[in-house]
Amino acid sequence: MNGARSPPPPYNALMRENDFVSWISNQMPTSPLVPIGIGDDMAAVSTGLSISNPAARPFVLLKIDQALDKVHFDSATHSPRQMGRKAVNRCLSDCAAMACRPRAILISVALPDTATEAFARELFLGARDAAAVFDCPVVGGDTAVWNQRLAITVAAMGVTGNQPVRRCGAKPGDIVCVSGLLGGSILGRHMGFTPRIALAQKLTEIADIHAMMDISDGLAMDFPRLMKASSCSGVIDAAKLPVHPDAHTLSQSDGQPAWRHALSDGEDYELLFTIPPSAAAGLVGVQSIQADVPITAIGKVSSEGPLKLLLPDGSTEDWPRGGWEYAGTGDAK
Amino acid sequence: MNGARSPPPPYNALMRENDFVSWISNQMPTSPLVPIGIGDDMAAVSTGLSISNPAARPFVLLKIDQALDKVHFDSATHSPRQMGRKAVNRCLSDCAAMACRPRAILISVALPDTATEAFARELFLGARDAAAVFDCPVVGGDTAVWNQRLAITVAAMGVTGNQPVRRCGAKPGDIVCVSGLLGGSILGRHMGFTPRIALAQKLTEIADIHAMMDISDGLAMDFPRLMKASSCSGVIDAAKLPVHPDAHTLSQSDGQPAWRHALSDGEDYELLFTIPPSAAAGLVGVQSIQADVPITAIGKVSSEGPLKLLLPDGSTEDWPRGGWEYAGTGDAK
Repeated sequence: MNGARSPPPPYNALMRENDFVSWISNQMPTSPLVPIGIGDDMAAVSTGLSISNPAARPFVLLKIDQALDKVHFDSATHSPRQMGRKAVNRCLSDCAAMACRPRAILISVALPDTATEAFARELFLGARDAAAVFDCPVVGGDTAVWNQRLAITVAAMGVTGNQPVRRCGAKPGDIVCVSGLLGGSILGRHMGFTPRIALAQKLTEIADIHAMMDISDGLAMDFPRLMKASSCSGVIDAAKLPVHPDAHTLSQSDGQPAWRHALSDGEDYELLFTIPPSAAAGLVGVQSIQADVPITAIGKVSSEGPLKLLLPDGSTEDWPRGGWEYAGTGDAK
Repeated sequence: MNGARSPPPPYNALMRENDFVSWISNQMPTSPLVPIGIGDDMAAVSTGLSISNPAARPFVLLKIDQALDKVHFDSATHSPRQMGRKAVNRCLSDCAAMACRPRAILISVALPDTATEAFARELFLGARDAAAVFDCPVVGGDTAVWNQRLAITVAAMGVTGNQPVRRCGAKPGDIVCVSGLLGGSILGRHMGFTPRIALAQKLTEIADIHAMMDISDGLAMDFPRLMKASSCSGVIDAAKLPVHPDAHTLSQSDGQPAWRHALSDGEDYELLFTIPPSAAAGLVGVQSIQADVPITAIGKVSSEGPLKLLLPDGSTEDWPRGGWEYAGTGDAK
């Protein structure tokens, strides 16, 4: 008699992506030609011709990222220009996270068989214009047609004259900072944000940024990633979170505190970074760094113990599980 | 009274991709930082920090390419390892076409929500192993889950110590050559081919390769692309086409001449290139270049006039329209 077997678990469990990235990373041998491999916002790869002298030629930074219909945008609501732009801007946000300059964009589009040529052209123009904001050309692409939904995949190549800023450099005692205002991006900002490339350049000129990433899945998901990469722990002060008006709007309709939205909503595409305390005075609250993009100190890095959230009433709680991750629900963000 | 309007034409008309690539290419300004832009097998991009001195740092070669379920493979038939491998090998075939060395692979996977984690892992291992054949690491990736079919997108970064071989360098009088045997790939070779990276390296060491590309959509589609890029015309001798046994097998079942399959079937992933007549003696039919991969002279480049096909009976016909292009039929190749 055959025993009934339970089916294997589906891939799309919350938090599963972190495990998968760790697993993949362990499958790749380290190489002197790849100073930064899987697990950071971008990889760094030597352009050297020989493995014996990888530093003889500069490295480039590389990233790939996809944007899917009904997951990252909704083709029933958003225009092809908006969708092309968002797909590129998501990838450029990773260039900001590494404080590099994007130098080339590649875009691959799986078009539904109902799409017109005008649709495909508009989508490309949205992608081109998003990259052109940063003097970055679209240098290659691929189109195919299928009877499924629209899928856009973008790859970026970036360069930097300095060492790129990684996730792994945070140190105990560092101040945790974010750019801009957080939460409620789903009300529309997730389609129209500006990647913080210019801001990242300025930050690295002014201060010694120890670790940085962009907040794409929400602070609740991404802060633990930054701390794990740096083998550190830390605390975030909920009362200090820079809450976007959109988070207040959501708060009024669902009764959640606005700071919870700032903590857990996804797709802020702001910068999350740590700096030594001595650098805080030159950055936090300084108006001149970039107009309309505040820098806010929201927490502190520590050496060990569980991640903590300091609540507005003065109590602490363990770090909330979750935050927002694409979980295959088919809901458009 | 509103007049009835006919709907705009769908994107997926045969041959439309050529027009779309031309249109996109015209939307991008030329830049000294992009010595090779849209329209070749890979783009070349300077890693220079400043536009004023683009040659101060080397360029890299970049490519993006997608492989879709029921278009480029069939998830009902093929294993995740096979699908991951093919997606990477398609991109590596473009590295061969430019005679560059692949230095990094990025892979983005849109998983159906029924996929297991084991499936995702197997797919990644197929991709990793395909790249490892050429000492090329997978340096980055992205996974997302949706309720649509599997889509895999791969980007490649390559380097070269020489100038890459482009499509645009063919000259009147050149001999047209192909590697390997053509036709009938759909019987299985399209899933298990070896990108001709090693062969391309050897060819460029031995001879002055004027123009090169890989045959992915079939010679009937790709030879006109090579000639158009070089502003040349040419003739192919059907009797000289190196016909694969698989093409003979298809010929027996459908009654088409086997050379028609060699001419028009897609996904050969062989090299198509032109050389000066003086170089032919050192390449064509020479056994030592790469074992089991013959180099065959199949035609000649001319300066003008329509492309011609010399038939086995000695007559000529105008170049057949079509060849094989992904046309959104949903049929797996």
